[in-house]
Amino acid sequence: MDETTREREEGSQFLPRFDENGLIACITCEASSGHVLMLAFMNEEALRLSLATGIVHYWSRSRRQLWRKGDTSGQVQTIVEIRTDCDQDALLIAVNVGGDGKACHTGRTSCFYRRLVLADGAQSLVIDPT
Amino acid sequence: MDETTREREEGSQFLPRFDENGLIACITCEASSGHVLMLAFMNEEALRLSLATGIVHYWSRSRRQLWRKGDTSGQVQTIVEIRTDCDQDALLIAVNVGGDGKACHTGRTSCFYRRLVLADGAQSLVIDPT
Repeated sequence: MDETTREREEGSQFLPRFDENGLIACITCEASSGHVLMLAFMNEEALRLSLATGIVHYWSRSRRQLWRKGDTSGQVQTIVEIRTDCDQDALLIAVNVGGDGKACHTGRTSCFYRRLVLADGAQSLVIDPT
Repeated sequence: MDETTREREEGSQFLPRFDENGLIACITCEASSGHVLMLAFMNEEALRLSLATGIVHYWSRSRRQLWRKGDTSGQVQTIVEIRTDCDQDALLIAVNVGGDGKACHTGRTSCFYRRLVLADGAQSLVIDPT
């Protein structure tokens, strides 16, 4: 293993790796339960603001803008813990959710409210909140 | 809400959205505990093979190749459940892990074995397996 890989995987330096679009994937989970709430992306500015304020900021790929989650909904995500993975190209953030405690714009607690069902070669989604 | 958005968010059709690089982000968690093990990406072929075989396949962005997780390590991930999010651009897959039950190539159960610590304006990572 070369020195760079060792430092990235085992070191104490936080060296987040942004992809060719300047983004890093971020899994957000509920601190109390560990339930996965959503997946979104941060750019360097969103990560900087998240660390500086303790409130999660994302980069919206569809709207192409910085996005302080909860600004309109009140579902502000307060950071409890941030983890990074072996190659530091993903983040796992545990949060407390403000407002009504939900994370999804459809009104569900988690964005992952549908389960894929495979039957007789056909695929369908079933609404089945976690 | 237009019809396409409604169908994507509330419908029963599985319509995974791959990004401009042909990839969809995939959060993998342990079925028994819900613990997040890793984040990786699938292209259309990896998703097709995962659904056809019940074994998780990814697309390695660094190696630029299809990757059947566990082929060399024995840490094969058998799919228990697949979920998708509101806009169908991410997957949450619950798995049972084969071999020694670990998901990370560094020998840890989860790839998210480091926690970010902020103190006096300095950032550092602490090894602290989930």
